Amino acid sequence: MRMVDIITDKRDGKELPQEAIEWFINEYTKGGVPDYQAAAFAMAVYFKGMTQSEAAALTFAMAASGDQLDLSEVEGVKVDKHSTGGVGDKTTLILGPIVAALGIPVAKMSGRGLGHTGGTIDKLEAFTGFQTEISQDEFIKLVNQNKIALAGQSGNLTPADKKLYSLRDVTGTVNSIPLIASSVMSKKIAAGADAIVLDVKTGSGAFMESVEEARELAGAMVDIGKSLDRKTMAVISDMNQPLGRFVGNALEVKEAIDTLNGKGPKDLHDLSVTLAAHMVVLADKAANLEEAVKLVEQVINNGEALKKMKQFIEAQGGDASSVDDSSLLLNASHLIEVTSEKDGFVSGMKASEIGRAAMTLGAGRATKDDEIDYAVGIELQKKIGDRVQAGDVLAVLHANQTDVSEASAIVREAYEYSDSEVVPEPLIHDTIV
Amino acid sequence: MRMVDIITDKRDGKELPQEAIEWFINEYTKGGVPDYQAAAFAMAVYFKGMTQSEAAALTFAMAASGDQLDLSEVEGVKVDKHSTGGVGDKTTLILGPIVAALGIPVAKMSGRGLGHTGGTIDKLEAFTGFQTEISQDEFIKLVNQNKIALAGQSGNLTPADKKLYSLRDVTGTVNSIPLIASSVMSKKIAAGADAIVLDVKTGSGAFMESVEEARELAGAMVDIGKSLDRKTMAVISDMNQPLGRFVGNALEVKEAIDTLNGKGPKDLHDLSVTLAAHMVVLADKAANLEEAVKLVEQVINNGEALKKMKQFIEAQGGDASSVDDSSLLLNASHLIEVTSEKDGFVSGMKASEIGRAAMTLGAGRATKDDEIDYAVGIELQKKIGDRVQAGDVLAVLHANQTDVSEASAIVREAYEYSDSEVVPEPLIHDTIV
Repeated sequence: MRMVDIITDKRDGKELPQEAIEWFINEYTKGGVPDYQAAAFAMAVYFKGMTQSEAAALTFAMAASGDQLDLSEVEGVKVDKHSTGGVGDKTTLILGPIVAALGIPVAKMSGRGLGHTGGTIDKLEAFTGFQTEISQDEFIKLVNQNKIALAGQSGNLTPADKKLYSLRDVTGTVNSIPLIASSVMSKKIAAGADAIVLDVKTGSGAFMESVEEARELAGAMVDIGKSLDRKTMAVISDMNQPLGRFVGNALEVKEAIDTLNGKGPKDLHDLSVTLAAHMVVLADKAANLEEAVKLVEQVINNGEALKKMKQFIEAQGGDASSVDDSSLLLNASHLIEVTSEKDGFVSGMKASEIGRAAMTLGAGRATKDDEIDYAVGIELQKKIGDRVQAGDVLAVLHANQTDVSEASAIVREAYEYSDSEVVPEPLIHDTIV
Repeated sequence: MRMVDIITDKRDGKELPQEAIEWFINEYTKGGVPDYQAAAFAMAVYFKGMTQSEAAALTFAMAASGDQLDLSEVEGVKVDKHSTGGVGDKTTLILGPIVAALGIPVAKMSGRGLGHTGGTIDKLEAFTGFQTEISQDEFIKLVNQNKIALAGQSGNLTPADKKLYSLRDVTGTVNSIPLIASSVMSKKIAAGADAIVLDVKTGSGAFMESVEEARELAGAMVDIGKSLDRKTMAVISDMNQPLGRFVGNALEVKEAIDTLNGKGPKDLHDLSVTLAAHMVVLADKAANLEEAVKLVEQVINNGEALKKMKQFIEAQGGDASSVDDSSLLLNASHLIEVTSEKDGFVSGMKASEIGRAAMTLGAGRATKDDEIDYAVGIELQKKIGDRVQAGDVLAVLHANQTDVSEASAIVREAYEYSDSEVVPEPLIHDTIV
């Protein structure tokens, strides 16, 4: 095979056979196909798209390009959840304990990642002593014992995807639905998922700004999952404002614990229950969504989910005392209020700007080597639909620095106002099965 | 500037400012922009095209990327001709002496090139002693003295184009009208042309198979020329069969001499007269095409063009005795007839296959280091429209090898037949000004 022929066929809209895609990914991973050919290929895909079977072949080849997690020793249906990313999204911290409490194995691989806050691992490291550098055997043992464990991602998970993503980032080819979909799905499949619930965000703070785009991406991912025999479904959820009221690392853990305790904000509670219920259905633990929702509410109300969280943190060496008292997690040295200069109803919040403000406080990493400050972040007191008068507190900055003028200004600017009452967008826009 | 932004703007159909294109070409030439970004850019151009001003900026930047020939010391309007390439095209050998005989300076830079026969330099080296390694001063002196000289191309002419073309060749981005057009025009402009006559080939033996595509390419090149203040026009000529009757190096020189002598085959004569006349018009040596045609026919009929050829060859050290007796150039050791196995009228000839057959005899180079055999080639005795009976000679192979079975088979297979009479395509399909 010659890469130039594969590029030309894709450019001309021909459907590539599975072998051609596998050959490309194998060769690209080991350096036999140079970056310049992969870049031309990615741009051709940007313009011509991929058929369902091409996208499935790409996903499968990328999943197979490095280590794959072998979860055959784990009993039960392994259901994973993936979110396309948004501000204040701490659902992973909530869903794990809930479904584990219902007997569904949660064998989670997670990364640190760049962005406005750390990844799931960083957030959990807000618990003193929490360890994720555990052996494969220990990980499997913990999952079988407690139904939940979390490990740091292997350095060699989907190397083809890592290489291709870095290339796409500098060649104007990030924004291609089949390439985004296969990137996400390859990681889930390499991580051993039998079934996958996808939370595709839409709105001003999401990669997919319109519901239509989000639906297209969700459809592509669900199609790939099905082509590769993984039960897959997607929820399209709103990201026109941050999810919940806290953005940060320890702050998000606090809000997750409150939600597991039945005391979370409504949007975070509702989305967590919905996603958990879909996971329960895919794991065959309930006949339908209504039944699954009841089971989920039950483990929240009877404290089983919270107990599972405690067990999970302790099993990996963490100090779980803050699970009993989540206010212990609020330990930034300065709390600074951001007040409104205007009157009106909050009509919009630039979610990505709130994320950027959290980043200036030290909550996230811009480059791999940056240190995260677990304690800092933003607590939103006003959200879309709320009535505000000049002088009201919009948000509280949790900071370990005295000069927060930049973060304050960004947060204040992120709020948009209307003179008339505002009804927020629905939390869930659509469900794709 | 960031290359990823330039790629993204092109991808999204925005018009790039001249500075962005210049920055890209400058950086790409010196290695500041990597091949993978240039490849993604080229694929984006493949899909989104370029505006006239973008293509002109690209051409100008590539022309300026290396050495440029300074012809300011040459008196008169420097008119260059470029052909998009075809089989049996020896018009450059004919046009130079004709227009030089009319007082128009011909300061030709030429390469060796790969393909079914050598380039113009290779063909002229069929004259023993002919030298093209001459200094810039000597070159200019010869042009001013004789109105005609030919030099080998500088190694550093349009390095950006060379680099980008090599990349396009392996990334499925050769076939883009603005990229082809700017590649051709950048070389003409770097070579110092004031005015340019383009011969865009169309048909089975040409890169642009349909007249429509050829017209599009011609239009793009003419637009670029005009944007850069070079008088430019294009003729769209037929390449459904080889031009003239000879394909090879010395063989093509022989046919060029015959044509300068007024004894060339009709198609080659007519196209040469037309192209030369357009050059005469662009050089302001005639008021219109009719007048120019008369001047051209005159220097053929009165022997001035042939005399100019002799002067040109001698001035560069060549033995011009074969200009007086062109049969001296036919000196291959074997002449082998290829006969027809069918009856009918020749309805088509795969020109590119005739070229391939010439190559198997040793007339061309597949790689830079191959040696050319000047003597070998193909003499076509039947062309489109001719009546053929089984056993008739279709072509004569001029070979220096005894086993010519491959070339024979290719030539025989290249002929297509019809039971009814066939009218060949017109020689000139269109003129773009």
